Amino acid sequence: MLPTLNLVAITAYLAASLSGVSAQTFQRLGTCPTLGCVLPPDQQDFLPGQQFDIRFEVHAPKNGSEAFNGGVPDETFTATIAKDGKNPKSIASYFKLSEPTIEKWTFSWYEDLFAQDAKTPSVVNVASKAYRRVALYDPGTYVVTLKYYSGKTTTATWVVRPLATRKKAKNVIFFIGDGMTTNMITAARLLAHKTVNGKYQSLLQLDKFPVLGHQMTHSIDSFITDSANSASALYSGHKSTVNAMGVYVDSSPDAFDDPKVETIVELVTRIWGSAWGAVTTAFIADATPIALTAHTRSRSQYGPLIDQALNGVRNYSWTNPGGPDVYFGGGAEQFIPGSGSYQGKDFYAEFAKKGYKVSLNKTSLLATSNKEKTLGIFCRSNLPVWIERNIFPANLAKLTNDPSGAQAAATDLPGLKDMTLKAIDILHNRGGRQGFFLMSEAASIDKQMHTLDYDRALGDLLELDDTVQATIQKLKQLGILDDTLIVVSADHGHGFDVFGNADTKYLGEAQDDRKKRNAIGVYQNSGISQYTVEQPGVSYGTGANFPVNWDPRYVIAAGLGANPDHREYYGIDKSGPRTPATAGGGSSEDYYVNPKDNPAGFVVNGTLPTNQAQGVHSLTDVPVFAMGPCQETFGGTYSNIDIFYKMAECLGLGQPTNKTGGHF
Amino acid sequence: MLPTLNLVAITAYLAASLSGVSAQTFQRLGTCPTLGCVLPPDQQDFLPGQQFDIRFEVHAPKNGSEAFNGGVPDETFTATIAKDGKNPKSIASYFKLSEPTIEKWTFSWYEDLFAQDAKTPSVVNVASKAYRRVALYDPGTYVVTLKYYSGKTTTATWVVRPLATRKKAKNVIFFIGDGMTTNMITAARLLAHKTVNGKYQSLLQLDKFPVLGHQMTHSIDSFITDSANSASALYSGHKSTVNAMGVYVDSSPDAFDDPKVETIVELVTRIWGSAWGAVTTAFIADATPIALTAHTRSRSQYGPLIDQALNGVRNYSWTNPGGPDVYFGGGAEQFIPGSGSYQGKDFYAEFAKKGYKVSLNKTSLLATSNKEKTLGIFCRSNLPVWIERNIFPANLAKLTNDPSGAQAAATDLPGLKDMTLKAIDILHNRGGRQGFFLMSEAASIDKQMHTLDYDRALGDLLELDDTVQATIQKLKQLGILDDTLIVVSADHGHGFDVFGNADTKYLGEAQDDRKKRNAIGVYQNSGISQYTVEQPGVSYGTGANFPVNWDPRYVIAAGLGANPDHREYYGIDKSGPRTPATAGGGSSEDYYVNPKDNPAGFVVNGTLPTNQAQGVHSLTDVPVFAMGPCQETFGGTYSNIDIFYKMAECLGLGQPTNKTGGHF
Repeated sequence: MLPTLNLVAITAYLAASLSGVSAQTFQRLGTCPTLGCVLPPDQQDFLPGQQFDIRFEVHAPKNGSEAFNGGVPDETFTATIAKDGKNPKSIASYFKLSEPTIEKWTFSWYEDLFAQDAKTPSVVNVASKAYRRVALYDPGTYVVTLKYYSGKTTTATWVVRPLATRKKAKNVIFFIGDGMTTNMITAARLLAHKTVNGKYQSLLQLDKFPVLGHQMTHSIDSFITDSANSASALYSGHKSTVNAMGVYVDSSPDAFDDPKVETIVELVTRIWGSAWGAVTTAFIADATPIALTAHTRSRSQYGPLIDQALNGVRNYSWTNPGGPDVYFGGGAEQFIPGSGSYQGKDFYAEFAKKGYKVSLNKTSLLATSNKEKTLGIFCRSNLPVWIERNIFPANLAKLTNDPSGAQAAATDLPGLKDMTLKAIDILHNRGGRQGFFLMSEAASIDKQMHTLDYDRALGDLLELDDTVQATIQKLKQLGILDDTLIVVSADHGHGFDVFGNADTKYLGEAQDDRKKRNAIGVYQNSGISQYTVEQPGVSYGTGANFPVNWDPRYVIAAGLGANPDHREYYGIDKSGPRTPATAGGGSSEDYYVNPKDNPAGFVVNGTLPTNQAQGVHSLTDVPVFAMGPCQETFGGTYSNIDIFYKMAECLGLGQPTNKTGGHF
Repeated sequence: MLPTLNLVAITAYLAASLSGVSAQTFQRLGTCPTLGCVLPPDQQDFLPGQQFDIRFEVHAPKNGSEAFNGGVPDETFTATIAKDGKNPKSIASYFKLSEPTIEKWTFSWYEDLFAQDAKTPSVVNVASKAYRRVALYDPGTYVVTLKYYSGKTTTATWVVRPLATRKKAKNVIFFIGDGMTTNMITAARLLAHKTVNGKYQSLLQLDKFPVLGHQMTHSIDSFITDSANSASALYSGHKSTVNAMGVYVDSSPDAFDDPKVETIVELVTRIWGSAWGAVTTAFIADATPIALTAHTRSRSQYGPLIDQALNGVRNYSWTNPGGPDVYFGGGAEQFIPGSGSYQGKDFYAEFAKKGYKVSLNKTSLLATSNKEKTLGIFCRSNLPVWIERNIFPANLAKLTNDPSGAQAAATDLPGLKDMTLKAIDILHNRGGRQGFFLMSEAASIDKQMHTLDYDRALGDLLELDDTVQATIQKLKQLGILDDTLIVVSADHGHGFDVFGNADTKYLGEAQDDRKKRNAIGVYQNSGISQYTVEQPGVSYGTGANFPVNWDPRYVIAAGLGANPDHREYYGIDKSGPRTPATAGGGSSEDYYVNPKDNPAGFVVNGTLPTNQAQGVHSLTDVPVFAMGPCQETFGGTYSNIDIFYKMAECLGLGQPTNKTGGHF
């Protein structure tokens, strides 16, 4: 007898069978496989009382495989909502809104790479309506039905999760290691903590967390996310599309009219009047910090998004969290008056007008009052990484990044720990009985993984771990450790892992690429970490949570599954952060090995599209570490949106009425 | 003011400062940086009552950077043991043993790759003593002191963990996904389970486990492990060296005289008389299954290790678990009389003589009694993978792997689920009141990751998940779910991750490697998984826990950080498992792209030594999923040895006396 075999029939792939559903590299609208679109789409969850917008679209493709109705969209579509099988009501009557006017626009897209090469876009005409600022207070299942083209129907099932009215944690501190995976945490431990015969003599702070979970990071319409939409999922409980934050992406040309969802800082200020803050080592308009308040499908609208953070949404009536109580990071470009700032205004002055103290360096940050709203912008662009700030400070002087706009280097720079501890002091004072929500981001774990600079990425991961450790001590000192939920997680991964060591001496002296590769020791030849072995004359003095030697002869050999063309040497680059690939040939979007990067190394040709200059994000679930009130809810495996619901549940944000706190 | 900068002084690396401690690619003896070696070495933990051997070695390097005493080792060394600061006693008197005779040998090693190229080994003469089969029953801290060369001292601190005499779980089932990481689990979920607008409509069984942990997999003397010594750490609570199982590696020439440690099946049979079994999709003498009973530093001693599994350790007095109650897998080479079997004997007959039923195919396995000890060997080498057994069965007929030794293909093959469910039936009967310990291994997750065959690796991961789900149902049916601790984990990782999709049609038609790479879609262009989209005419019928289409136009694009030279196409290979690299040039140990592998793909040159034909293991912590009695002890982050202590604690194996069960 044969084993249980199943009949197999694999048909040749027929391009003709391609429907809109199968579109993959490009999509007409990711959340809308049919021609009728409901936003929020099918299978979305809501916190009771969470405010959001609804948009309906009817698509009429003029050409391509989906061409329909001569490209004329149905403007007479109707939409209803029904709870738990009860009678459906029209959207306008259910939410007591007047019927909005029809909007119309046209967009185009490519059905696949062949169509892109042939420059044959598919054009789609759209009719749409948007219903703004609604909420569902009653837990249960809602079915939204869109009827269009005389008989076509698109339904969306929404679940409003149970009420959570009781506040179990006074404060929440949410640390995000951008792009941080379990693989990177393992490598960082290896660099900073010593083993004796396989037993670690000290551990990361993350290793000591009582509860561990995994979160799935995929987007609503792609399995690889970016930091905008994954941050938004973490903060709002709603997944979105790459580049989008605080909205479901529609197909309209306006980047600021997409249907919005309320974020955790909007909720916690509206309901409890709590204080809130954001700390980052990125520029502060970058996706992870800005997604706390941003509502746009275009993350690159940096100036307007800083205005949104301070002044709230301008073009629609919307809940306004009243500006952050602390806001620390880089990105002076959006504050110095000019092309990078909203309407060319001086945003240092705009913040000051609203009562903010403004700090532009570490010295003034540490000296400033713990009682005032505080803006701290310490450089242009991202903060230089931990390795530059602590190991190669001479590299800082090469930059022109003074936050005042002067043609000078910013050298009086705080680190993530300085910023986070100061933020806690201020938020603890300002939140008072209502507590606070703080997001603190180690941004350059991601940024340095993008440029394959493993040392600098791991340095910033260790800075995050050191910051978490110091935060626990700070909370103990303030007497609020037991009132504070601490969550440490990431927003997505990079496919990084360590696979052995590299003997940099042998690698450097070998004369061809194949012989250089033989400098790598795998399995038993990996040996033990030399980053923890004291070397006479080498001293960094950066503390117990960091390597004693960043530049040993035997270094970790690591890699990503996805690369641009590049050259590997594995040893630390002392001149500054790495640029693995540079534009070559005739095109500025065609990348080859950077001839200046790792000249003693060996060439590795890329696995990514040749227009990619850096590595990219990966699929992997990322770890979640939790301690404090509600920690037990963070075990096991779940979606990134569940982080929002777990935090919101712990903060009592699932309310049965339109509750407004007393913060403003 | 400058930020807090620390003074930095990086000295040029001086080869002259190299001491034995710094040796990395090669080590004299990994656990022995000085010239006096204590085995078990410093920082080792023990279960109360766990049996083990002790070895001392004194090294006298004749030449090289460590040359000492003219190459004459001190034979007059002495050794003592002291508990919790009390008076030290000699080893012989403490354990009531007679003083062993001195052993002497010579070995050589290379100090680095330059020495290897120059063929200038360092030679070491050794004097040694071994104290066999001892145990420490009293929890606490023990210090062992070796004195040698008139004044030199090496100490080892050992910790005997607390007693655990109460059995909390009747049964333990330990699933090992060999080489399985969180990244792979994420990818497998993407292939088999459908999302609608970002929400999974079904999940992996692993996703539903209530408790999640991470374990660190590193070896005792290298940060990258192999499957032998990591399995051994999981089963014994003692880390070891690559290729070793159930021993601490000494420097002697004999692969079977290294100091042993007792394993969990030796303990559970000695103490409770429980039944035990091993199931694997590898050849059964492979590291993960054989480490349950093996005591050797050389995992490739397949024939002798099968004899050890059946008959116990022959050359020393040692606890004998009496042979497995079930033993299912591939690897007929060690059973067919001939060069692969121990002493050329017929090991089917050897097992039969000891009362085993022997099954050589799925039909007879399913039909055999649930009451007898059972050996099931279903093929030579490893079991063909799930994809061949279920999707491309025609490939099975190409093999010559009949377990009887006939020149024929084994086609009546069970899968991991068949073997595991049958094993549970038998073990439940045979264990009776004393319960059972079962290890079930999905071996080819690792084996197919080694050959960069991502589809086949993920197919076997999904088979593991499906098996775990079926196991839970089986335990419910038997009424023993609540009595059974289920742990699912891995032994190490591979640096795998998914980074986008590949349009195989575009990739196949593009005419050069750089254009082919542009078939890859990253971020929003990754889209949603097409493996879950039903395609007319394509049906695998392999059940809810597997993809509905293994061969879509848009496939996952994935990779490892460490590769041999290879060519990537990303689509499934229908002809059989992949061979990415083959020997080229003049040497059989110099690997290049296999010209037959993925001819339509693009070339990626390797990052590994050119003598590596496959990918290698990686550093990453691996996940641990637990449910059942003691599940709560498996949260957080810990060493792989802690898995042993957690299971042993749950089984009440930490005993204050030399307890022997009634199984034999």
